[in-house]
Amino acid sequence: MHTLNEEKVFKDPVHNYIHVQHSTIWRLINTAEFQRLRRIRQLGTSYLTFHGAEHSRFSHSLGVYEITRRIISQFERNGYADWPHSEKLLTLCAALLHDLGHGPFSHSIEEAFEMDHEDWTRRIILGDTEVNAILAEVADDFPVKVASVIAKDYVHPIVVNLVSSPLDADRMDYLLRDAYYTGVNYGTIDIDRILRMLRPYQGRIVVKESGMHAVEDYLMSRYQMYWQVYFHPVTRSSEIILRQIFRRAKELYRDHYAFGFLIDPLPGLFEDKLSVQDYLKLDEALIQTVFSQWTNEKDAVLSELCSRFMHRRLYKYVEVESVDLEMIDQIRRDFKRVGLNPEYDLEVDFPTDLPYDVFRPGDESSQKQILLLDREERLREISEVSDIVRSISGIHRGKYHLYYPGSKMKDVISSLSDPVSQIFKR
Amino acid sequence: MHTLNEEKVFKDPVHNYIHVQHSTIWRLINTAEFQRLRRIRQLGTSYLTFHGAEHSRFSHSLGVYEITRRIISQFERNGYADWPHSEKLLTLCAALLHDLGHGPFSHSIEEAFEMDHEDWTRRIILGDTEVNAILAEVADDFPVKVASVIAKDYVHPIVVNLVSSPLDADRMDYLLRDAYYTGVNYGTIDIDRILRMLRPYQGRIVVKESGMHAVEDYLMSRYQMYWQVYFHPVTRSSEIILRQIFRRAKELYRDHYAFGFLIDPLPGLFEDKLSVQDYLKLDEALIQTVFSQWTNEKDAVLSELCSRFMHRRLYKYVEVESVDLEMIDQIRRDFKRVGLNPEYDLEVDFPTDLPYDVFRPGDESSQKQILLLDREERLREISEVSDIVRSISGIHRGKYHLYYPGSKMKDVISSLSDPVSQIFKR
Amino acid sequence: MHTLNEEKVFKDPVHNYIHVQHSTIWRLINTAEFQRLRRIRQLGTSYLTFHGAEHSRFSHSLGVYEITRRIISQFERNGYADWPHSEKLLTLCAALLHDLGHGPFSHSIEEAFEMDHEDWTRRIILGDTEVNAILAEVADDFPVKVASVIAKDYVHPIVVNLVSSPLDADRMDYLLRDAYYTGVNYGTIDIDRILRMLRPYQGRIVVKESGMHAVEDYLMSRYQMYWQVYFHPVTRSSEIILRQIFRRAKELYRDHYAFGFLIDPLPGLFEDKLSVQDYLKLDEALIQTVFSQWTNEKDAVLSELCSRFMHRRLYKYVEVESVDLEMIDQIRRDFKRVGLNPEYDLEVDFPTDLPYDVFRPGDESSQKQILLLDREERLREISEVSDIVRSISGIHRGKYHLYYPGSKMKDVISSLSDPVSQIFKR
Amino acid sequence: MHTLNEEKVFKDPVHNYIHVQHSTIWRLINTAEFQRLRRIRQLGTSYLTFHGAEHSRFSHSLGVYEITRRIISQFERNGYADWPHSEKLLTLCAALLHDLGHGPFSHSIEEAFEMDHEDWTRRIILGDTEVNAILAEVADDFPVKVASVIAKDYVHPIVVNLVSSPLDADRMDYLLRDAYYTGVNYGTIDIDRILRMLRPYQGRIVVKESGMHAVEDYLMSRYQMYWQVYFHPVTRSSEIILRQIFRRAKELYRDHYAFGFLIDPLPGLFEDKLSVQDYLKLDEALIQTVFSQWTNEKDAVLSELCSRFMHRRLYKYVEVESVDLEMIDQIRRDFKRVGLNPEYDLEVDFPTDLPYDVFRPGDESSQKQILLLDREERLREISEVSDIVRSISGIHRGKYHLYYPGSKMKDVISSLSDPVSQIFKR
Repeated sequence: MHTLNEEKVFKDPVHNYIHVQHSTIWRLINTAEFQRLRRIRQLGTSYLTFHGAEHSRFSHSLGVYEITRRIISQFERNGYADWPHSEKLLTLCAALLHDLGHGPFSHSIEEAFEMDHEDWTRRIILGDTEVNAILAEVADDFPVKVASVIAKDYVHPIVVNLVSSPLDADRMDYLLRDAYYTGVNYGTIDIDRILRMLRPYQGRIVVKESGMHAVEDYLMSRYQMYWQVYFHPVTRSSEIILRQIFRRAKELYRDHYAFGFLIDPLPGLFEDKLSVQDYLKLDEALIQTVFSQWTNEKDAVLSELCSRFMHRRLYKYVEVESVDLEMIDQIRRDFKRVGLNPEYDLEVDFPTDLPYDVFRPGDESSQKQILLLDREERLREISEVSDIVRSISGIHRGKYHLYYPGSKMKDVISSLSDPVSQIFKR
Repeated sequence: MHTLNEEKVFKDPVHNYIHVQHSTIWRLINTAEFQRLRRIRQLGTSYLTFHGAEHSRFSHSLGVYEITRRIISQFERNGYADWPHSEKLLTLCAALLHDLGHGPFSHSIEEAFEMDHEDWTRRIILGDTEVNAILAEVADDFPVKVASVIAKDYVHPIVVNLVSSPLDADRMDYLLRDAYYTGVNYGTIDIDRILRMLRPYQGRIVVKESGMHAVEDYLMSRYQMYWQVYFHPVTRSSEIILRQIFRRAKELYRDHYAFGFLIDPLPGLFEDKLSVQDYLKLDEALIQTVFSQWTNEKDAVLSELCSRFMHRRLYKYVEVESVDLEMIDQIRRDFKRVGLNPEYDLEVDFPTDLPYDVFRPGDESSQKQILLLDREERLREISEVSDIVRSISGIHRGKYHLYYPGSKMKDVISSLSDPVSQIFKR
Repeated sequence: MHTLNEEKVFKDPVHNYIHVQHSTIWRLINTAEFQRLRRIRQLGTSYLTFHGAEHSRFSHSLGVYEITRRIISQFERNGYADWPHSEKLLTLCAALLHDLGHGPFSHSIEEAFEMDHEDWTRRIILGDTEVNAILAEVADDFPVKVASVIAKDYVHPIVVNLVSSPLDADRMDYLLRDAYYTGVNYGTIDIDRILRMLRPYQGRIVVKESGMHAVEDYLMSRYQMYWQVYFHPVTRSSEIILRQIFRRAKELYRDHYAFGFLIDPLPGLFEDKLSVQDYLKLDEALIQTVFSQWTNEKDAVLSELCSRFMHRRLYKYVEVESVDLEMIDQIRRDFKRVGLNPEYDLEVDFPTDLPYDVFRPGDESSQKQILLLDREERLREISEVSDIVRSISGIHRGKYHLYYPGSKMKDVISSLSDPVSQIFKR
Repeated sequence: MHTLNEEKVFKDPVHNYIHVQHSTIWRLINTAEFQRLRRIRQLGTSYLTFHGAEHSRFSHSLGVYEITRRIISQFERNGYADWPHSEKLLTLCAALLHDLGHGPFSHSIEEAFEMDHEDWTRRIILGDTEVNAILAEVADDFPVKVASVIAKDYVHPIVVNLVSSPLDADRMDYLLRDAYYTGVNYGTIDIDRILRMLRPYQGRIVVKESGMHAVEDYLMSRYQMYWQVYFHPVTRSSEIILRQIFRRAKELYRDHYAFGFLIDPLPGLFEDKLSVQDYLKLDEALIQTVFSQWTNEKDAVLSELCSRFMHRRLYKYVEVESVDLEMIDQIRRDFKRVGLNPEYDLEVDFPTDLPYDVFRPGDESSQKQILLLDREERLREISEVSDIVRSISGIHRGKYHLYYPGSKMKDVISSLSDPVSQIFKR
């Protein structure tokens, strides 16, 4: 591990400065693959709801690296025996690169094309890339190790734990960062305090008991951010349109439709045959440019959806307490009858939220727990100790939302059957 | 002017909430032309220096609108007779739309293609656009009026003054917003205090004398932001590459080079024949996608420049106290001799800074002054009263920077003539 | 009601500016009685735990006034019919003055001398004071009206509601202010959003349903502030010492002990015979000065307690899950046996927390509810709608704490009986 | 030097956490002498202008310690050879204790009684105090060393430099802290950046040249804080009254006036015979209590001044461009003639400001310079390099202010001679 002659810093609004001390980290940041993350927004389409949320996964990845660096630095200052010092660079690299495989509008594109960003992260790390070359300079097996931390099967679970757990650097950074850029102040947590409370202990990261309140506050912040930001119905509406665009384009491609505009690597995407090099060409600039061109496609469904997305003409929604399959069927039939397209003019959405999966007897997955360490060195799962955590863990909130094109609905609502028109009248 | 049934708000990190009360404003925001501003960054390539600076002109335009709204609201609360109440909607529309004509990477593209964003703003407002249609609903001559405010020749100079002056809503918003998103804290000004100190007076906006310190602080903040952010040499480096790409592509187009990838409206841009509809297709997503495709062009100069821009392989620079034409000539000759391309491998840059143009006897342009109003209702130009303003007004700072490709230079530096290699050795 | 020629402002770190528009408010602030609040800390002895918490009730009272002003201003902007416009000045005066009767280290002194600050607030408002004179200039019955709002029996319950309810200006200000001055970031709430969501409705203040999340967040913040700040065991320790000092001094006075230092109005305080003028002399400067002098009293108990308070030599504590009367009795006997004084060397403390009293069927006190108003104009108690509120409402947290002088304990712990020494050994 | 088993932290609004790692520091904080600083406000009477400015010298002293700790930690991380590692504890102790000798309302009391707080700091450190005992445990000569750093004659000038220089921890903390507590945002500086730019170099602390902008910003912040806060005319007015109270009491004491209330250590103060133990009894609680009692003194001048101070009935002021001795004489004669007391009813004040003393050829006092270190390891005084610093260094701003009792003036102004009444009429 090469130390830089002089520490490099990035100015960051969330952490003030991001400190880079190793040349490996510095060089990874400067790879084409990592720079690509500048063209992928951290919150996908949320900027259509919160106009400030234009921040990139590049920023977030630097933030995750920085928090990880601070945690390790705290461990080293305190000389904790349970921290495997030799894993420092590995942990930092994995933290920095953990989101490398994210595609444009990640959640929507993954759903539409059944991709998995973690899988792509590993492929990029192990493939013929600049990132791989730099990692391989550390040691021949270093890329494999980094990929293994991402895959959560690395031999030292504590390293995995730092990069991926209910209280990991990833979650802490996105909470703070998303709150900062949306302007929503629910995400402000006392990160300094949380960091001071973390300890490596018997192969995993635990929290000193005196940090319980800070962790409660962190979980409440997550809870609020889920409802205020991540599951915002307007954002869901834009995601729905995005997925419909992808779905329509895929259908058209399958049916040999002659696109007026089609560039690489879209065919590969439609055919599920993307090489790593193809995949790296995918970014949000490309997707937006394609959609912009597609506003002129002769296929009316595709061009309309693309116009909606580009000019932010989103679907409206109604909230319903519950909805059964029969009713959905009736709505679809009604839609068809009055000339709406039930395939594209209706989406049923049920948001779910699990801010923290509580311990369940017999649950083996200790990686999903937050453990408190008390003065007598006993470990307890936080939901055993905290009423707050226990009470929010059980909450299943959220209602069904029916999304539909508002303008079209206006014209036909009077022709819908009574129970259906009742729903959309609100 | 239609008041909305219920005020709409946008959550904004800088102003907390942006309040929309008139349906005209609401509908303008929802036009395709205004939504396009989401795809144009406020600070152009600065995100390559400050990774947080990914905010759009959409955000900024809302901010300018909001500050203008607050100023007018203060004028109305205080019942100032000099404020022409009937101009409220006009002023708000002009504030909202003043940046509508910005192109992608605005400063660079304007320089490369001799365009003017204010000119485009007026063309969009007066052209066959959604914005025009909505404005025309207010009154037939309303679009012309808005365009006239943008052109700074509207009949009521106070309206122009609010939208464009050394202490206008535009500058106040960008100072705060750019500071927020870069994370640089030099731009924090006491905007509430400044707003309270503004007064309409004899056809223009003046500042109560007791607000002098707040204005000094604002000018100092601008001064610092210029040097810390706007003129940052790394940002200049990325702008230089951008301009070189535009220049090279224009040359190639002129010389009938067969581009591997070329989409509308690029030909129109190269031929200086853009319609309003063409222009509106230009955004940063398109530019980035084109550059990304061009990394594979066979023209080596173009493909290399595009790679540099997309993967952030910027030019290095050296700072020199001064440089004369003769020396530049010698450098060019040397470059040529050792196989560098003086047309593209060298750029000389001299940053200038005029945070506030001081009053000069005989200067007619009262629009460029900040006037203080004292208790005896005397008006004085701020630089007459403030030592601070006077002292920073005169400062011409900045040095010459020579930009060049660092990797190429390494190979040839030993072959350069002595005085030239001295310069680039540092 | 006299409007000031020019609005006056106070610079405030929490609300940025506090705006005073009426001369009555301005003059009330300048009374001797209101200025006295500068010498009474908002958080009593909390500054011994959080050194930043040195802010006064003067600051807080201005903040409560300002929030109330903003709420009313919102009501007026929206032209809500249910807001009785003529009560504006009354509401503002009551908001400003509601804490006027607080004594030094209020909670402790009230407990020790069975006083009630609301009662004193009314006595000051109705007594021969500057405040009374200024209020009486508005109308003869105006002081009585203000006192009646404080007493919560004013004829318009909506006025009472604004000044005192689970979501009143008082609670909102102290949450924000205490968080700011302690540096604890749990109290950051989106006050702008909450204010926008308030509505006068059928004689009380209700919250629009869309503001539910903001209210949840506010209640969670209160919950966290209670545990992190208000019930901090170190603060409790200092309050215990304070109460013991008061208790000891009262006993000594009753027993005709010859104090080395005793000034007015202490005798009146001990005899429960304070006039309004006497009461107004009580402030924290006086209490601290008296304690400082008493560090030299010959009564060892008093002088030691005063030294403890002045030099922050607080009692230590142990936390126990539960403790029964029998055990306490045994501890007392043990203490006596080993030479400790059970009257002063032991305090048992059980903190309780009720962040929000939930609705109970049959509960008449609608003043204690937070009501949500949905689009169909139905009112619902928030705990009916919010899982979060329901779950935190039921939580009874906190453990018993036993406080004792740590240094003395060290010397005797080995002589204590086994079960007792077990407790204090931790 | 004893390291604590576990680092202790203080929650601080300015630095987030203050970290204590050595038991010596921990024990010094817990001394009676250091705890006394809780009862001395950092900004004296400024809380009468900015109600939030109620923070104590205790808070500030912790802040100075913390900044010093961070600077040293940076030096150690970077392994700078010029930093004498063995002086760490000494530097930290001196930083923590440097304000120990401040009296109540320090600037005013020092002026009135010709005291010097640095002198008292040394006396407390060397006297029979808890602080002295703890320091002496480190080494016999350790108290002398600490006192010598305070006296600026310690053998290693770099230690003195850290604790006292134009860019020392003291100034940085008070700028940030005073801005935070007043709510004025002129004092926000990028302290992390400044700290990173400091280097020990040849026996003093210098700044890397690339930190010049940050230092400029810091000096501008100081400049603004001086004018907005430290020299605020309302604060000056309260200081004037304070000094008059001290002056009057001293005169009365000298003239054997029978005070209705007089407690230790006031006689010692009046006679200039304070022991260290006496001095430590002086705090702002005592001063305020004495003044409160003195509002009932039979000496009308004293009782009125004390009422003014306690109830914030400050002197009014007029601003004049210049005033000569003759005019002052005439005012005094006029005042006498119309029954005003020129000794107490008039104060002439000329504020001065030297944000940064520029280098003057021949100036030996290198301790007063800020030196920049460039890449070629050349040292240059900042005002040689920075236009901004040069331009603000020369500014002598400020006007004369004449302070007087507004209410009395009203009654007599018509009887004053013409030129005098002109002045006070504004």
